[in-house]
Amino acid sequence: MPVGTLATVKGVPQDVLEELGAEIILSNTYHLYLRPGVEQVRKLGGLHSFMSWPQAILTDSGGFQVFSLNDLRKVTEEGVTFRSHLDGSAHFFSPESAMQAQIGLGADIVMAFDECTEYPADEARARASMELTLRWAERSKRYFEEHKQEVPWTNATLISSHARTGFLARSGEHGPPVGVETPPVGCNPAPIQAEATQALFGIVQGGMDPALRKESAERTVEIDFPGYAVGGLSVGEPRHVTREIVEATLEHLPADKPRYLMGVGTPEEIVEYANLGVDMMDCVLPTRAARHGLLFTSEGKISIKQAHYAGDSGPLDPNCGCRVCRRYSRAYLRHLYASNEVLAQVLNTIHNLSFYLDTMRAVRHSISLGK
Amino acid sequence: MPVGTLATVKGVPQDVLEELGAEIILSNTYHLYLRPGVEQVRKLGGLHSFMSWPQAILTDSGGFQVFSLNDLRKVTEEGVTFRSHLDGSAHFFSPESAMQAQIGLGADIVMAFDECTEYPADEARARASMELTLRWAERSKRYFEEHKQEVPWTNATLISSHARTGFLARSGEHGPPVGVETPPVGCNPAPIQAEATQALFGIVQGGMDPALRKESAERTVEIDFPGYAVGGLSVGEPRHVTREIVEATLEHLPADKPRYLMGVGTPEEIVEYANLGVDMMDCVLPTRAARHGLLFTSEGKISIKQAHYAGDSGPLDPNCGCRVCRRYSRAYLRHLYASNEVLAQVLNTIHNLSFYLDTMRAVRHSISLGK
Repeated sequence: MPVGTLATVKGVPQDVLEELGAEIILSNTYHLYLRPGVEQVRKLGGLHSFMSWPQAILTDSGGFQVFSLNDLRKVTEEGVTFRSHLDGSAHFFSPESAMQAQIGLGADIVMAFDECTEYPADEARARASMELTLRWAERSKRYFEEHKQEVPWTNATLISSHARTGFLARSGEHGPPVGVETPPVGCNPAPIQAEATQALFGIVQGGMDPALRKESAERTVEIDFPGYAVGGLSVGEPRHVTREIVEATLEHLPADKPRYLMGVGTPEEIVEYANLGVDMMDCVLPTRAARHGLLFTSEGKISIKQAHYAGDSGPLDPNCGCRVCRRYSRAYLRHLYASNEVLAQVLNTIHNLSFYLDTMRAVRHSISLGK
Repeated sequence: MPVGTLATVKGVPQDVLEELGAEIILSNTYHLYLRPGVEQVRKLGGLHSFMSWPQAILTDSGGFQVFSLNDLRKVTEEGVTFRSHLDGSAHFFSPESAMQAQIGLGADIVMAFDECTEYPADEARARASMELTLRWAERSKRYFEEHKQEVPWTNATLISSHARTGFLARSGEHGPPVGVETPPVGCNPAPIQAEATQALFGIVQGGMDPALRKESAERTVEIDFPGYAVGGLSVGEPRHVTREIVEATLEHLPADKPRYLMGVGTPEEIVEYANLGVDMMDCVLPTRAARHGLLFTSEGKISIKQAHYAGDSGPLDPNCGCRVCRRYSRAYLRHLYASNEVLAQVLNTIHNLSFYLDTMRAVRHSISLGK
């Protein structure tokens, strides 16, 4: 899932995202809550309508940003008090208010409010944090079940929007996005599923302790969600630990429901995690790296700012068919980056996203071939 | 002509420019001379190849930037010594070196090196400056005639590049860009015009004195160029003076050759100047204003940053068919701008260029109807 923090994948128009084959993007509840505000988005019909993106959207719970962007946060049983990174103003997220925000934003998939356990954490701390996340998961689900009908879109608007942009035709080819309630494959807009709402996923925590991860997974599954995320990783631990914890967690999550690994990774890592059974991943790496001139290619990583590309008339990646590699030379991309031109960010991001989405298409193809 | 200072119309990919119907863009010799350097562009086949833009390009002479971006410039009969706005390094432009740079960059239309007379200037100063520009025009033409075969592209590469991107097909519909030597309309790549080179335009100066303008125009026409520009306007004078000088100048320039008014204007002004007989204009206004959230619409100018647009679900311009107005709301554009998102600049620029190019299409349509 490309990351579109503020209801925009930085620098990339929505039609280009569609052309790249992005079927779902992630937006950040914390950022949208601060700007433009949940109520504003809700009144405009939710994120799909607000950003003109009829494909699927997932919003995170806000928990990770509250923890990673706030040194002054205060956690209680009730929730988290934090300060805006924009103006220092004080705010409070509870499982209930985080769910309320995500229902108002109206993404297709929403996440239970969790505490992202810091790294390193000792056993007692990791257990206490895990227990808190479990209690918050129950509260998240309870609030969601009681309020899920308040989502700003109705089925009618959602389906007509999908039909307008050919979403249904694409669903017919590839199947609906995991965990998203869409009309039956290949059908006409009718019959409408009158009861369709958002899908709430639970999040497994438990630090770097496989036993805690097992317990967290089992007890989260007991609460019962239509999909499960593995949280609390990529927080500074060594990569081999990430892999061990992913493996230790996945085996306790049902394989017939989406398993979502949050916040990873490099192209090599997403292949590896998919191979372990992960169905969904999100990461800022392709988009953030692009803004720093770091480009992923079939021949390895390239830092386009390097002077030796200044006279290189070849394509960025000779094996890539994206609109950037089809049209522009390394020399031109290097010039744009060195001159601090906005088009550098636009083109670099398009290419990196294309590379990531191609990687996942190759993974899906291998799966369909039984490899 | 949209302005693409550093071989990029800031934030807009080349295929979007093509979709907008841009048939020619302007790039700045001064900026490209400093970054990435003329030799770099020349070795890569010239600007067309470097930026992957097979449509027409015009480069200015560098004179205007030398004057407007340099407080420490020193003008002699030979040329201008100036300092880079990037690193303060010393450089020298003469008519010969400016032509050499423009031949190396390889645009379709290049401009004689001129002195842009400051405003206000007394009669003696305006005359002296005009005389200098006339001497520089002769030197520019002499150097160009002796060196025009050094252009980095050959006809073969230009035509194959045009054919590859369908440029010939478009030429067949609309006729070739003014002043640009292209293959005969509607033909196959063969027969190739073996002698095709760039087109060098002369520039009329003369301050705000109609008599000096007349003399400058007549003596520039005597030197004989395939097109003529009116320079030294939009330098701080009142708009009614601009108009008077444009009128006073145009009547002394041949109507059967392109007449190019440099550095204007608002949408209303470009219609007005076209009505006076101007064939070509360039201006940073649509692109620069877009970056400041100022958007041109059929209902007037809009400052998208204003808070009252935050909840406005309507299109930016209900009468505009551009990809921005077709897809996004004012509320979303306002959010992008207020959040300092790069997509704001991208979308705003696309819309403003669309509005300008639509304006000129309407002008051409009126002309073809004899109105």
